Amino acid sequence: MTTLSLVGIGSGNPDHLTRQALKTLEAADVILLPRKGGEKTELADLRRMIAAELLTTAPKIVEFDYPLRDADTPKYLDGVNTWHDALAAIWQDLITTHVPQGGHVALMVWGDPSLYDSTLRIADRLIARGIPLTVNVVPGITSLQMLTAAHAIPLNTLGDPVQITTGRKLREDGWPEGISTVAVMLDGNCSFQHLVPEDLHIWWGGYVGMDQQILIEGPLAEVCAKIIKARADARASIGWIMDIYLLRKST
Amino acid sequence: MTTLSLVGIGSGNPDHLTRQALKTLEAADVILLPRKGGEKTELADLRRMIAAELLTTAPKIVEFDYPLRDADTPKYLDGVNTWHDALAAIWQDLITTHVPQGGHVALMVWGDPSLYDSTLRIADRLIARGIPLTVNVVPGITSLQMLTAAHAIPLNTLGDPVQITTGRKLREDGWPEGISTVAVMLDGNCSFQHLVPEDLHIWWGGYVGMDQQILIEGPLAEVCAKIIKARADARASIGWIMDIYLLRKST
Repeated sequence: MTTLSLVGIGSGNPDHLTRQALKTLEAADVILLPRKGGEKTELADLRRMIAAELLTTAPKIVEFDYPLRDADTPKYLDGVNTWHDALAAIWQDLITTHVPQGGHVALMVWGDPSLYDSTLRIADRLIARGIPLTVNVVPGITSLQMLTAAHAIPLNTLGDPVQITTGRKLREDGWPEGISTVAVMLDGNCSFQHLVPEDLHIWWGGYVGMDQQILIEGPLAEVCAKIIKARADARASIGWIMDIYLLRKST
Repeated sequence: MTTLSLVGIGSGNPDHLTRQALKTLEAADVILLPRKGGEKTELADLRRMIAAELLTTAPKIVEFDYPLRDADTPKYLDGVNTWHDALAAIWQDLITTHVPQGGHVALMVWGDPSLYDSTLRIADRLIARGIPLTVNVVPGITSLQMLTAAHAIPLNTLGDPVQITTGRKLREDGWPEGISTVAVMLDGNCSFQHLVPEDLHIWWGGYVGMDQQILIEGPLAEVCAKIIKARADARASIGWIMDIYLLRKST
């Protein structure tokens, strides 16, 4: 039997790790360490640093390459599902190679494994393929939590619901009916620019929780162009960007 | 100038603390430690244990009593606002008494200060009263993250939005239009029992992340009564309960 621990490591700073995350990584036999091709080498470097400097034990570190997701697949979900299948095949190969008799394999997951992350879905594919696997999830601080912390704002207004969505859904569906607060993740296109900005306030963050953190907030009508420019400039100078934002209707 | 650090400590286990939370508490001059009257002494005990056993420094610990919220106030929000005003007066008194020349005051916040928590609103009241205060937020693992981790499920379905709401709002507004996943917090009344259960799956947890953790999941029609009974039994035997759940429409 193999235990696969999906360990949330937070959003780019080793101080985001919980005691539980550290203990789980220390207890692992093998840590699988993804190298995401190309731009986000800082993220792989952070994982290497955590494994090399923060653990009191020395699990075997196995680096592996992520397959590229085919962004040209006509249907978005088809592309994602094919990509998850490819990743499941890679994990299966790594697990059978490195813990052939069973053991404890851990993966460090950006943010929290529950929120817009693929690792739980890939683990489900392994189980569906008949691999004897117990999945152990360790929560981590999400970029959404780093965003609200950096701006020192609550996620919800008093007693009100919150919607967490993606840039794609915000563009497709518009502002959700009856909701005062919307948090938007995975938005490569500054989708807030397509909303009617009146009565909306935005709290935006790039690289939240990291050394390069950039924060902009204000009425959407006033800061929309500023955010688009800051995002483009940062991406050009740093080479990649991760950003997130919260929108609230004034009442 | 005084810095007020609101430090998320997670949901009932010292292993939920992040390195950042520990470092922030260690750097404080004073830690204000609320005693919530009556039933939840375990929660105050956990804070005392964190302060006494996990920190490498010895900030001054100042315990204080929480005022009771008047649940009989006709309008829910009026009652909450009056309660926040009362808490702000207590904090102001504690800060001026214990760091009269300014300093670093920390509070340990259950879960994360951004999510259905009052501390940021109380801090805003202090600033509105003219107290020179810098608010520093340290995110913590929420009970919602502990719930999804314990059940090893993602919060969102692939690329879809999620709504986080309260029991009150779920009862008042029903199932939100166009949403497949709803997470419900602050529900003292098992509000899921008022939903049409067909096509709904529930993942419920009591005391998530704590030693007493109870997990129940299944089609809502099948497990609704079981959850209501388990919740009532646990509350009767332990003396209090904190629970949370996630509902998903089958597709």
